[in-house]
Amino acid sequence: MHSLHFAAHVASQDVLERSFTLGEIPGVLWSPLSPVPGVPLLLMGHGGGLHKRAPGLVSRARAMVIEQGFHVAAIDAPGHGERPRSAQDQRWVDSMMQARAAGESLAPSIAAYNGSLVERTVPEWRATIDAFQELPDIGREAPIGYQGMTLATAIGISLAAVDERIRAAIFGGVFVYDAVLAAARQVTIPIEFLMPLDDAEIDRASGLKVFDAFASVEKTLLAFPGSHFRVPAAQLDTRFFARHFNRVDAVAG
Amino acid sequence: MHSLHFAAHVASQDVLERSFTLGEIPGVLWSPLSPVPGVPLLLMGHGGGLHKRAPGLVSRARAMVIEQGFHVAAIDAPGHGERPRSAQDQRWVDSMMQARAAGESLAPSIAAYNGSLVERTVPEWRATIDAFQELPDIGREAPIGYQGMTLATAIGISLAAVDERIRAAIFGGVFVYDAVLAAARQVTIPIEFLMPLDDAEIDRASGLKVFDAFASVEKTLLAFPGSHFRVPAAQLDTRFFARHFNRVDAVAG
Repeated sequence: MHSLHFAAHVASQDVLERSFTLGEIPGVLWSPLSPVPGVPLLLMGHGGGLHKRAPGLVSRARAMVIEQGFHVAAIDAPGHGERPRSAQDQRWVDSMMQARAAGESLAPSIAAYNGSLVERTVPEWRATIDAFQELPDIGREAPIGYQGMTLATAIGISLAAVDERIRAAIFGGVFVYDAVLAAARQVTIPIEFLMPLDDAEIDRASGLKVFDAFASVEKTLLAFPGSHFRVPAAQLDTRFFARHFNRVDAVAG
Repeated sequence: MHSLHFAAHVASQDVLERSFTLGEIPGVLWSPLSPVPGVPLLLMGHGGGLHKRAPGLVSRARAMVIEQGFHVAAIDAPGHGERPRSAQDQRWVDSMMQARAAGESLAPSIAAYNGSLVERTVPEWRATIDAFQELPDIGREAPIGYQGMTLATAIGISLAAVDERIRAAIFGGVFVYDAVLAAARQVTIPIEFLMPLDDAEIDRASGLKVFDAFASVEKTLLAFPGSHFRVPAAQLDTRFFARHFNRVDAVAG
């Protein structure tokens, strides 16, 4: 088992940002400058083709640290960000691009590519959680949440299905294929599902289908006009993680 | 034009509750004990068959006063609460009950009955707003919002379509017929729409249809398992009115 190696620390605007590697997995951990022991850890997945420092992700991560006092972590999925893309992954990407250019369905390529990425990334997230739980300023008591759309949802649903350390999750905007539905049926934690209502590549019916599949007693569908490229975050903010991690008082005063 | 007549004042737990009549319209106004001039006024509609003091409505109204410092007002729709039901209204109610008992669609009776209630109640709400705007502790500067499901949504959509004093609204769970869609197409203010996903009497497709009809640039669909009888309010709370009335700082600290 690899252990966490921290490469660079930068502190700005009350956020400590630490780059790390865990074996071949590169990641970033954003933390309060003086974290209270036991504060929650939020895992943030990046979308397909993006990476751990995509601007939207960084902005959401920093906001969670500043506004809620959480730790937030992101890692690059295989073939994303700093990680080399394999020849097989390149073929899947090429076939997606060809399908999109030809106006054909992306579904077959995405099901295969996402499926493979899920298989590879779920164990990496689990190893990353193991390593964080060894850190003195996170430890085993910190409640853990997961948030991410598109590819990050495909990965996150499977992660939440197999790792009970994930206690609450925000998913959304995912390509739906059988393995996603099968994993969703294993998920019982509270979830929110963000659904773009006018997405050229993911229709409403498939969004509703995966939402229905979750076994969670508490699940909420937050839907908005437009595509998954523009999520109106403020309009959809129910203080989900703060509520589930019993921190609403700290936020709402 | 009638003027407001306040009948009874009761203050408890930081809420001043005033019963009033405006001509034949009975209502309640809940306010902070020491309202800040210009704080928002939220109009709360009751569901079909309910009234201005339905327990859920009162509980939501008091919470808005205590947590946000708003004024909240409710009135009885014609034939509801303290107001006598006309012979024609009774025939509509009877035909709804017969349809429900026979397992038939409620749509024809509800379209007729709600349509008539909308025609009668919209002018009453407008007169009530006129009267509130004459009150020293509300006045003409207070931003006005509207909230209510089912019948209250049918009424509220038509009210928001014709009265530009309504600046933001939460609707949901409404029987959809042509007049509702036509009114929704005239609504341009920010809205949230609450949609029960498993309502025996209002299907998902009609919820999506009315949501799509709103002309609002900002609109969000908040959907949840179950029927409109159990709305998981905390899970759907995006601080909508506080955000639109520029009061988030006062709430979130």
